[in-house]
Amino acid sequence: MAISDQVKTDPNYPIPDTMKAWVLGDPGQLTFAEKPVPSPEKAEVLVRIDAVAICATDLEIIHHGPPAMIEGGEPFNKNFTPGHEYMGTVVALGPGVDEYKIGERVTVEIHAGCGQCKRCRQGMYTSCHNYGKNYGDVDKGHRANGFTTDGGFAEYAVNNINTLVHVDDSMSDEEATLVVTAGTAMYGLTELGGLVAGESVVVTGPGPIGLLGAAVAKALGAQPVILTGTRDNRLEIGKQLGVDHVINVRNEDAVEKVRELTGGKGVDYVIECSGAPNGLNDAAQMVNRGGKICLAAFPGTSPEVDVAYLVRNNIYLYGIRGEGKAATHRAEAFMRQKRFDATLIHTHTFEMADLEEALRYAKDRVEDAIKVVVRNPHAQQQRVAAE
Amino acid sequence: MAISDQVKTDPNYPIPDTMKAWVLGDPGQLTFAEKPVPSPEKAEVLVRIDAVAICATDLEIIHHGPPAMIEGGEPFNKNFTPGHEYMGTVVALGPGVDEYKIGERVTVEIHAGCGQCKRCRQGMYTSCHNYGKNYGDVDKGHRANGFTTDGGFAEYAVNNINTLVHVDDSMSDEEATLVVTAGTAMYGLTELGGLVAGESVVVTGPGPIGLLGAAVAKALGAQPVILTGTRDNRLEIGKQLGVDHVINVRNEDAVEKVRELTGGKGVDYVIECSGAPNGLNDAAQMVNRGGKICLAAFPGTSPEVDVAYLVRNNIYLYGIRGEGKAATHRAEAFMRQKRFDATLIHTHTFEMADLEEALRYAKDRVEDAIKVVVRNPHAQQQRVAAE
Amino acid sequence: MAISDQVKTDPNYPIPDTMKAWVLGDPGQLTFAEKPVPSPEKAEVLVRIDAVAICATDLEIIHHGPPAMIEGGEPFNKNFTPGHEYMGTVVALGPGVDEYKIGERVTVEIHAGCGQCKRCRQGMYTSCHNYGKNYGDVDKGHRANGFTTDGGFAEYAVNNINTLVHVDDSMSDEEATLVVTAGTAMYGLTELGGLVAGESVVVTGPGPIGLLGAAVAKALGAQPVILTGTRDNRLEIGKQLGVDHVINVRNEDAVEKVRELTGGKGVDYVIECSGAPNGLNDAAQMVNRGGKICLAAFPGTSPEVDVAYLVRNNIYLYGIRGEGKAATHRAEAFMRQKRFDATLIHTHTFEMADLEEALRYAKDRVEDAIKVVVRNPHAQQQRVAAE
Amino acid sequence: MAISDQVKTDPNYPIPDTMKAWVLGDPGQLTFAEKPVPSPEKAEVLVRIDAVAICATDLEIIHHGPPAMIEGGEPFNKNFTPGHEYMGTVVALGPGVDEYKIGERVTVEIHAGCGQCKRCRQGMYTSCHNYGKNYGDVDKGHRANGFTTDGGFAEYAVNNINTLVHVDDSMSDEEATLVVTAGTAMYGLTELGGLVAGESVVVTGPGPIGLLGAAVAKALGAQPVILTGTRDNRLEIGKQLGVDHVINVRNEDAVEKVRELTGGKGVDYVIECSGAPNGLNDAAQMVNRGGKICLAAFPGTSPEVDVAYLVRNNIYLYGIRGEGKAATHRAEAFMRQKRFDATLIHTHTFEMADLEEALRYAKDRVEDAIKVVVRNPHAQQQRVAAE
Repeated sequence: MAISDQVKTDPNYPIPDTMKAWVLGDPGQLTFAEKPVPSPEKAEVLVRIDAVAICATDLEIIHHGPPAMIEGGEPFNKNFTPGHEYMGTVVALGPGVDEYKIGERVTVEIHAGCGQCKRCRQGMYTSCHNYGKNYGDVDKGHRANGFTTDGGFAEYAVNNINTLVHVDDSMSDEEATLVVTAGTAMYGLTELGGLVAGESVVVTGPGPIGLLGAAVAKALGAQPVILTGTRDNRLEIGKQLGVDHVINVRNEDAVEKVRELTGGKGVDYVIECSGAPNGLNDAAQMVNRGGKICLAAFPGTSPEVDVAYLVRNNIYLYGIRGEGKAATHRAEAFMRQKRFDATLIHTHTFEMADLEEALRYAKDRVEDAIKVVVRNPHAQQQRVAAE
Repeated sequence: MAISDQVKTDPNYPIPDTMKAWVLGDPGQLTFAEKPVPSPEKAEVLVRIDAVAICATDLEIIHHGPPAMIEGGEPFNKNFTPGHEYMGTVVALGPGVDEYKIGERVTVEIHAGCGQCKRCRQGMYTSCHNYGKNYGDVDKGHRANGFTTDGGFAEYAVNNINTLVHVDDSMSDEEATLVVTAGTAMYGLTELGGLVAGESVVVTGPGPIGLLGAAVAKALGAQPVILTGTRDNRLEIGKQLGVDHVINVRNEDAVEKVRELTGGKGVDYVIECSGAPNGLNDAAQMVNRGGKICLAAFPGTSPEVDVAYLVRNNIYLYGIRGEGKAATHRAEAFMRQKRFDATLIHTHTFEMADLEEALRYAKDRVEDAIKVVVRNPHAQQQRVAAE
Repeated sequence: MAISDQVKTDPNYPIPDTMKAWVLGDPGQLTFAEKPVPSPEKAEVLVRIDAVAICATDLEIIHHGPPAMIEGGEPFNKNFTPGHEYMGTVVALGPGVDEYKIGERVTVEIHAGCGQCKRCRQGMYTSCHNYGKNYGDVDKGHRANGFTTDGGFAEYAVNNINTLVHVDDSMSDEEATLVVTAGTAMYGLTELGGLVAGESVVVTGPGPIGLLGAAVAKALGAQPVILTGTRDNRLEIGKQLGVDHVINVRNEDAVEKVRELTGGKGVDYVIECSGAPNGLNDAAQMVNRGGKICLAAFPGTSPEVDVAYLVRNNIYLYGIRGEGKAATHRAEAFMRQKRFDATLIHTHTFEMADLEEALRYAKDRVEDAIKVVVRNPHAQQQRVAAE
Repeated sequence: MAISDQVKTDPNYPIPDTMKAWVLGDPGQLTFAEKPVPSPEKAEVLVRIDAVAICATDLEIIHHGPPAMIEGGEPFNKNFTPGHEYMGTVVALGPGVDEYKIGERVTVEIHAGCGQCKRCRQGMYTSCHNYGKNYGDVDKGHRANGFTTDGGFAEYAVNNINTLVHVDDSMSDEEATLVVTAGTAMYGLTELGGLVAGESVVVTGPGPIGLLGAAVAKALGAQPVILTGTRDNRLEIGKQLGVDHVINVRNEDAVEKVRELTGGKGVDYVIECSGAPNGLNDAAQMVNRGGKICLAAFPGTSPEVDVAYLVRNNIYLYGIRGEGKAATHRAEAFMRQKRFDATLIHTHTFEMADLEEALRYAKDRVEDAIKVVVRNPHAQQQRVAAE
């Protein structure tokens, strides 16, 4: 097998030399192929994938490549395996690793910053200046599994220990795949935004990040939390997650309603998750003077933005891509403490071999799909002995 | 006279009942009129105006009204006196004031926050939620002299002590009027941005805030500091203020040049002071991943903005209006320590009676005017005894 | 009556000219006397006291004077009314006040910063540089009700609107008196400390601040939260408030146990609420490298402190007096959302006339008293019409 | 030679297999021995040592071992080479390194955090939770050269690129060795403390960190900066570095004098660099309410500390060991821009072979020695070709 001698494994869990993994050919083309099992190096572990959630970005990567600038080029026809919202079981430890144990259940975040650039040294590893440099020949150390290095639509994946989050036994595999989505919302709300209990929040767009963003905002003590969207069934899930008010933008003027609900002032934070062309302008009208807007989504083209309004009202704006600043650990803490039920957004489950069907459900929102999870059928059968 | 008994004055400096003051009639119409001298209340002083600089916003206020939302309406035909970049001498103290002395030279910042709203209690008084509420009948306490309450194109003005900055004897009256402009740049760079020595900065647009922004950036130890603009004479002043590189955007592609000067990475901060329609998009291309853009200017119409780029690159953006967080005190400290020569941007001086001519110089940039200062001719003759 | 014409009142709730109030004579001597009802000025309201909790600091003030440096001298024989953890009903509004309504239930924080000093302008009003200056003739504006200005052991008190917190209808009067205690804990944990979900906390000393500190830490998502103390019944209340582990220091070595519970590393935060002579040294041994210690209590004499250990381990330490940075509003938000049951620490209730007996219960911990609340018997009978 | 094939070197600068290096035997015993030249691995370079300054901590390490907790035990008789304030020339690049060039002059900071622990991920790598774990068999990645891994009293040393700071050509070798000392002061003042221009600072103790701390405070725009000490010649150097006031504590009561110089209020920051037993209590009396004390030194025994005073006055306290948060880069920026002349504290130079004599000068302050620098005599002769 491919695993080196310095790697620690469970004698009762022999790690195979090869595995089944989905591999990206031309844009949009996936093959369920045979691939070598990778070997963990220093500060890395080998994770057996037990479950993977599908993210809208997976669809973008599979069809168009990763969203951010990649210096090493595109991922097509490079034996690349996508998938980044996965969880599983640690089955091998790289040299020196003692932070995690064999047999431990873990979920992952995406970015293992290079650890050397200015941003990584500030703890802002999702803004790593060496992002994407490990695509081609150069390897500057920033792994973004499922984006620039092999991801989770496979039986095994190697992860830097910085990208691991312990999963409590009370959490199902499916729920654990949602930690990274909740972590992204957490990052937007607390790490960059500084939300504190009692402050007011609007979340625009009840997709997975929006819905969990509203849930995280309530867990942090925000009040009121207002959710806007176009689908009543999604807004209803928002209510179940603790949202104080929902606004269906097909029936009401959201800006006007938000101002009405806040005594004319607007809210302290807006998390823009709709990606609507006028999303930023609407957010600016919803936030109060000196307030903050987190952009977690974006439109495909460049919309007209009322920049003057942002300046005149001292509005802060920040874009986030990914989960950052160990926010997944905070999200897992809230989920472990049952502060909100993330499984409300999990709607469908498929086997790994049926990934293409699962992707279709996610893409076309078949049967109102929100989060579609793919499972590794072998995971259940093969128990890994805890140390 | 109008001064109450509880107010402390210098017996040798009798304060008159009335004064000469420029008063705004219809849009664009100013009259040099007779007005009562106002009386300072608790936490206020009376300042004899010695010099006032003209800001582009003065022109806007005189012709169109204040830039931000004013609940009390417009300032026209209300006996309102504009002018906000003034300095002078304390001639009377409101009840209980012991922070300043009679005879002390002071310069001012604009905003005396209401002290009660969420933002004021966070120290963000330029984002006061009661801004503009003292225009009409309601008085919620936020004074913005020259914006919503009487300003400095007059012989006297009342100021809350929170808006005062001590002026060192080594500084001329004219230089002291520039403290608030340097303070605005300081606010953008340090209070919101967190600039530290050794970080890189682009300033776009060599107007007064841009030029002093570049100077403040150097004083803070930034390197390199790059200034872009269209006029060589202004860029030359930037060099005298310590700028490392200048780019004339008529001759070079500024984005390309900034990337070349920074090894392809871009800079840590961009201070957008040009107000150009593509200013924000250019700034985004100049800043590195996870970097910050401060918008200190804005275009008149809503430009198309590449929002996706901001999100994909985790860019922070914040608009600033005014000087905030006591940044004027920091600016004055640097100026007192002669870290940069702000007087390089002072080009013309007029007497108060000639305000209209001074405004024309400022508006039409007559003789390449940058900062035009108006002086009170009586200031020199009437010495106020220091306590 | 003493209320001025500019003050707004409810015509159906006539405000009397005088009221009953406890007044401090010589140290330790209280008299239930007749006093004028004070009149609210600008940015102030008149609160009818409905309930007051007794704090250990009340006992100190009554017997020894306020804990911090007071420039105006001691409070004895000055017609001073102590009591600072009170709640009640707004019965009159000072000129211009529209933030609160007549008939609104409110609870209070202590410090109305001067609004002019460096600290107040940073939002750090509990560190006001003019603290205590309103005792004597000088009035620099910082009111600390029950410390330097009249407090709540009376029928009425004047409060700056900055010290008011709206009380939700779902909260009893007694519970509302505990908001300021929870707010002090909140201030220590979040405003100064930066605690985020998933971080670990030790609280030493299960007094009121310690118990609510542990509850707030859990509400913020901390894990584990460890509470140490000497009394099993108090530790038991900690468990009911959600604490993960309790340590009775009479039976176990707390430092050793904390290290055992945290894999040898120690915790991220220690809130020292015991005031034990070795409290700081123990806290330093419990916190991990780069961790933070909040001192909310202190011993009467100067203990020996291992300063070298603090330096070698990059430990942060901060003392807090009071609640600061609007933390009471965050505490109220959590309490309104029923994140923890603060009433578990309320053990006894007395009528206002029986204050001396109530103080004895609090001081001597009669019947294991924790929080003793004193009620105004007239409050229930006299309903104030909401506007 | 020991250098691996993947390492990039200058063909004209052959790297020898062995080198001369000072090696620690029993406590206090150093031998100038022959040792293999180490080979740089991933993210590391090989530095030819050109000059090393002696720090008081070197003396402590040589005689007693490193100051902080070391899990791997003591450094004696382990072929360990001390010395941590060194600079030199990059002569070999580990695999993938392109951040630095062969032939580039660099100075170093001490701590290359593990990059995996909570603190390193926050950017607080001097508080690394794996500090000292690379002494023995375990290697958790945190190198602290001259503390837990081989340092600079040798011809060559391996450094993680995170510990390197580019040295400008305008800076001499000797000046470059002082960057880390200035960086420690910078860390204390800006990274933890948040000092801004115009704030007031006391530095107690005019040792190397104290003197450069005062210089950095002035470079940041602090005013006034007050330096206290017992030796007039050192205080005189402080004046040359820009200090506004000096206090010889043999002649004056420093606390009283500081209060006098600050209008009775005290200063915003105290940097305690004296290590005097009463240093912390004095600092507390010098700082104003809500102010900050940075402990950069400490007494040998546990002094009595007035903890009550710290709590009552909301004082912040933090200990620092080392330079942290890339503060050396900021210090280098100021030094490159000639904001202060660090060479004023460099008093003596010796050859590497005379290290023991150099240590004696440093330890006994022979001829008023402040910073004693040791040079590698071969450095000058062997020019390394820049790429």
